[in-house]
Amino acid sequence: MNRKESTEPRVDKLGYTLKDVAERAGVSLTTVSRVINKRGYFSEQTESRIYAAMQALNYQPNSVARSLSGKKTKLIGVILTNTQNPFNAELLEKIEAELFERSYKVIIANSLDNPEKERAYISMLQSNQVDGLITASHNMIIDAYHDLNLPVVSLDRYFGPHIPTVSSDNFSGGQLAAQNLIAGGAKRLLVFSGEIHDTNPTVDRTNGFMAASQKNGLTPIVQVMPSDATVNFRKMLIHQAITEQQPDGIMATDDTTALLVLEALRTMNLPVPQDVQVVGYDGSAFILQSFPELSTVVQPIADLAKTLVEALLTKIDQPERLQERQYMFPVTFHRGTTTK
Amino acid sequence: MNRKESTEPRVDKLGYTLKDVAERAGVSLTTVSRVINKRGYFSEQTESRIYAAMQALNYQPNSVARSLSGKKTKLIGVILTNTQNPFNAELLEKIEAELFERSYKVIIANSLDNPEKERAYISMLQSNQVDGLITASHNMIIDAYHDLNLPVVSLDRYFGPHIPTVSSDNFSGGQLAAQNLIAGGAKRLLVFSGEIHDTNPTVDRTNGFMAASQKNGLTPIVQVMPSDATVNFRKMLIHQAITEQQPDGIMATDDTTALLVLEALRTMNLPVPQDVQVVGYDGSAFILQSFPELSTVVQPIADLAKTLVEALLTKIDQPERLQERQYMFPVTFHRGTTTK
Repeated sequence: MNRKESTEPRVDKLGYTLKDVAERAGVSLTTVSRVINKRGYFSEQTESRIYAAMQALNYQPNSVARSLSGKKTKLIGVILTNTQNPFNAELLEKIEAELFERSYKVIIANSLDNPEKERAYISMLQSNQVDGLITASHNMIIDAYHDLNLPVVSLDRYFGPHIPTVSSDNFSGGQLAAQNLIAGGAKRLLVFSGEIHDTNPTVDRTNGFMAASQKNGLTPIVQVMPSDATVNFRKMLIHQAITEQQPDGIMATDDTTALLVLEALRTMNLPVPQDVQVVGYDGSAFILQSFPELSTVVQPIADLAKTLVEALLTKIDQPERLQERQYMFPVTFHRGTTTK
Repeated sequence: MNRKESTEPRVDKLGYTLKDVAERAGVSLTTVSRVINKRGYFSEQTESRIYAAMQALNYQPNSVARSLSGKKTKLIGVILTNTQNPFNAELLEKIEAELFERSYKVIIANSLDNPEKERAYISMLQSNQVDGLITASHNMIIDAYHDLNLPVVSLDRYFGPHIPTVSSDNFSGGQLAAQNLIAGGAKRLLVFSGEIHDTNPTVDRTNGFMAASQKNGLTPIVQVMPSDATVNFRKMLIHQAITEQQPDGIMATDDTTALLVLEALRTMNLPVPQDVQVVGYDGSAFILQSFPELSTVVQPIADLAKTLVEALLTKIDQPERLQERQYMFPVTFHRGTTTK
């Protein structure tokens, strides 16, 4: 051990980087990284210099602690848009239960539709202790995930062949919704859709709805609900679209929006399903239990959670194993009393 | 650095303890602990021997990493009953947002009304990396929290003077519910209550309801809903109690049960509020937005979350500071159309 270094006061200053360690030890960054991660063989002297520098600088991020100890942290980051949406709440609960059985714990990160918050979380989780990441948010940030040096699995969003995607068949779900409304006699179709961009599963739902409608000679109107809209703004948009379009069949691409639609129809004295039929999307246990009246497309949430967890743990434990990259589950239709 | 030690192969074997480090370094356990935690002054030689022993054994648990770096882990454990209940989902979302602003992350633990799972989580969180714990579960396990060597704050459950409790005024909330039903003319009152034990806030709600009813010469019937009951069992109990008691005023001690009550009344063709008035409890944003019809007692969830976080961080950062031990927030009544 280098006496000069170890007699200096040990400071608790934060912010030392691997580079500081490399400089102090007089070796390259690559060497520090390799020694810490035990990749390759180095002289005892080199290793001692690096460890001495780390101690002198109090350089001890958890990723290093993990590498040093050879232990996993048994923490998984789960990135969601929010936890208030019943689909997300149930998905989180089931992911947590699956991971608990395997002695993993969940760090929860709500992006709240804010790409900057999601980016900040990714960075926090990366520099911290997670063994892997499950992302079920829908922001359009791709680069932050590509640069990640962590096992990742994704719900719905497609990032590329190296990140497994788990989803349910959103296109077929949209078709199912349209077919049921049309079978009940609907002709003026209206869709309340989440934002239209590639990473949002509601796009496929809307596309499936359009395809099935057009097959029947119908052309639905699509009203996009901005993801950052307040509830009152959403209510206003719903009220406005119903007034203007006078639909007799409505799909909302999530159940919470469908409930706002039912609410609006009640205040407008438009009887459901006589004058207007309504179909939601997601079919969480909470909605199916508390509002069995709502006809909705049901995603298999337990299967999604289990597959996300299993795909991620396979990536963590057997990174060399070839994995099926895309898992797509079928959806079902729950017939309530909001369709005929 | 001791050459003999450092030339031995570095093993990744788990399970080395502080005692192994002490033995290898030839010092006492106390000395190892003090050096690691920087309590007291020791010779450079002693420190070097201990660090060398730690490296040789790959001894690097997180608590040590934390101590070495002088850093907190910036992780907080949040124990909830579940995340599907909208109140819990919103509380979790708000706690997470408050902690994110302060650069803390949340490890989520759902007890699912299972004391053994809660106990297992407490133990996992204690031996791991959390700086503190927020508990909002309602199991009757007290001992596990008393033995904890971690800052803890509690929602609703009272553990003793050393653990701050944050709650809203559940007794007044129950009174409010009864007063509103009685003002609407209700005489045959029925309560669907959570389980009756000291750690459950629904007890105070029910007690407040009883007190206000008795003041008006009324004696409500209380139907307890077992916490481990399936949804179908709950529905059966609700159906049965309504059939037997023929109430004209019902309080449910949480909104999700109130929604099941409304559902049951619809299937029984009992008009609300004409024949039966209904009041729920919690008033989460989701319920207020999606079912403004439901009259309910509203808890200030944002205030509860903020106070839980602030009380915990005070305990963590200024353990010497005297804290107010009990924080109780007032509740409000949301008048929907399920009461007259």
